[in-house]
Amino acid sequence: MPGPLGEFELIAALASRLEAPPDGIGIGDDAATWHPTPGMLAVATTDALVEGIHFRLDWTTPRDLGWKALAVNLSDVAAMGAHPRHALVTVAMAPDRADVVLGIYEGIGECARAAGVYVVGGDTVRTTGPLALTVALYGEVHPDRLLRRAGAKPGDVVAVTGAVGAAAAGLRVLAGDEPVDLSVAAPLVRAHVRPQARLHAGPALAAVGVRAGIDVSDGVASEVMHLARASGVEVEIDLCQLPLHPAAVATFGMVQARDLALTGGEDYELLVAVAPGVLGVAQAAVAPHTGLTVIGRVTGLAAGGRVRYVANGDALGAPGTGYVAF
Amino acid sequence: MPGPLGEFELIAALASRLEAPPDGIGIGDDAATWHPTPGMLAVATTDALVEGIHFRLDWTTPRDLGWKALAVNLSDVAAMGAHPRHALVTVAMAPDRADVVLGIYEGIGECARAAGVYVVGGDTVRTTGPLALTVALYGEVHPDRLLRRAGAKPGDVVAVTGAVGAAAAGLRVLAGDEPVDLSVAAPLVRAHVRPQARLHAGPALAAVGVRAGIDVSDGVASEVMHLARASGVEVEIDLCQLPLHPAAVATFGMVQARDLALTGGEDYELLVAVAPGVLGVAQAAVAPHTGLTVIGRVTGLAAGGRVRYVANGDALGAPGTGYVAF
Repeated sequence: MPGPLGEFELIAALASRLEAPPDGIGIGDDAATWHPTPGMLAVATTDALVEGIHFRLDWTTPRDLGWKALAVNLSDVAAMGAHPRHALVTVAMAPDRADVVLGIYEGIGECARAAGVYVVGGDTVRTTGPLALTVALYGEVHPDRLLRRAGAKPGDVVAVTGAVGAAAAGLRVLAGDEPVDLSVAAPLVRAHVRPQARLHAGPALAAVGVRAGIDVSDGVASEVMHLARASGVEVEIDLCQLPLHPAAVATFGMVQARDLALTGGEDYELLVAVAPGVLGVAQAAVAPHTGLTVIGRVTGLAAGGRVRYVANGDALGAPGTGYVAF
Repeated sequence: MPGPLGEFELIAALASRLEAPPDGIGIGDDAATWHPTPGMLAVATTDALVEGIHFRLDWTTPRDLGWKALAVNLSDVAAMGAHPRHALVTVAMAPDRADVVLGIYEGIGECARAAGVYVVGGDTVRTTGPLALTVALYGEVHPDRLLRRAGAKPGDVVAVTGAVGAAAAGLRVLAGDEPVDLSVAAPLVRAHVRPQARLHAGPALAAVGVRAGIDVSDGVASEVMHLARASGVEVEIDLCQLPLHPAAVATFGMVQARDLALTGGEDYELLVAVAPGVLGVAQAAVAPHTGLTVIGRVTGLAAGGRVRYVANGDALGAPGTGYVAF
């Protein structure tokens, strides 16, 4: 990696943004190593962000971008009910982008410290193309406390943590096609550029017996369909129950805020199916961190999955396999 | 991922190139999961390949490229004395490259089957830039059988598996600046486009008590320096003992073949430091798969590391921290 910093200087500068793991085995070796916790399942996920596709550096700071690159992976691990432990970070960059990459690592380090994750390795490569960030994240979960997409059962209620629609509304604010009150819309932009993964809610829900979950990385409509398909069930969603982010409603109105929540994505909330008898304890379990709002129910078995939308209980058109904006 | 194949069709087509893991937990979920082997250390590494920087599709087939993307990571795991287990594959591609990516997955699948590795997840993202492949590889090793860069001790001999210089010579053949006899040079090209990681040799050496190792991903000179620096020792390398690949010598002559081995890289052999009393059993341990040639010795302690080069025992210039081509 030629440039203002040599390859080894750059790697040293990047490493200085990160906290070393307490055992430290394998740092500087061909691979990182760690001691798995006995009896736990290993969990692994990876997500990549590409400049011009997933982010624009005139819309986000390098530091926020680094935070987000790790946070989107934390969300996947939380959606399994698991605890994140170790990350590998790969950066593809043009030689003149070292300053940007140093800022990105500040954000990765900040997010890692907040999550109790250690960045134990990675790769820094040159590219002639856009800057790209790939994080591979390893975690652990007790085999009896796994959240799966396939776990929804007839009779379950469907619920979502926190509020939805904020991140997509923030993206729309950044796109700047319409005038908005930035004093109201600021939390939307922040939701887009610096998402908060539901690290505590995932394991907390799994601990009280919830077995079906997915994170809201795409829109709610798409995630509900994934859950319905993997579980082989029909899900009914009441659009009037969606916990829309108040700033999204204030900025874009109820109808558009709902649309952003259903089809926009990047909220990184957790969508779960819960037996009605467990709902109260599930809400109590996440209460220190966030709410858990019922937005629908599993109405029966359906091979291949099906989702129906209602508004305050009234049917809206024909059942389909996905949500169509109206 | 728009294009001739839709996103879900592409992912299904890619998955069909791969073998599903026997337990299959987490496939299609937010993250992959597996059962770690009790008592083993976790090992993880990642390496990325970018078009135009690390490969050219007029010099390699997509299938060979897929093989190589996994193999370079297998080499890192082998260099820890570890066994590879699970991989995550991230592809960044322009929408019109689906055919190339399908070919790449053929090669990844082929390499994974040969290594007993399961590809359990990944990410497929769009890019406006060059095609890029990132593999994160997870493996396991017994805590008492770890190869480390820092394990070399005064009195050890330094040895390398197989032959060196072939991959860099193959790259030079592909660059095509000079006429070569392709009937002789074909193994060199193959060494460059389809490297064979020393999957068996790494754990076999660790099992007989070898504790210091590194893989030859850069040139031998650079890897020897890493070993010397991490171990805080002085290493003497006898240039006349390097096991140069015979086709590299036949094609480019002894002096240039030696230079390619020392500074070229991508041979993915293992470089180890071995106590003299263990050398015979180490050579026997790798003998079913490859040779193990003594190329030098650890002559003493040296803070920060030092490497000296000799030829048949005669000193060559001043000791330095790296090899300078002559």
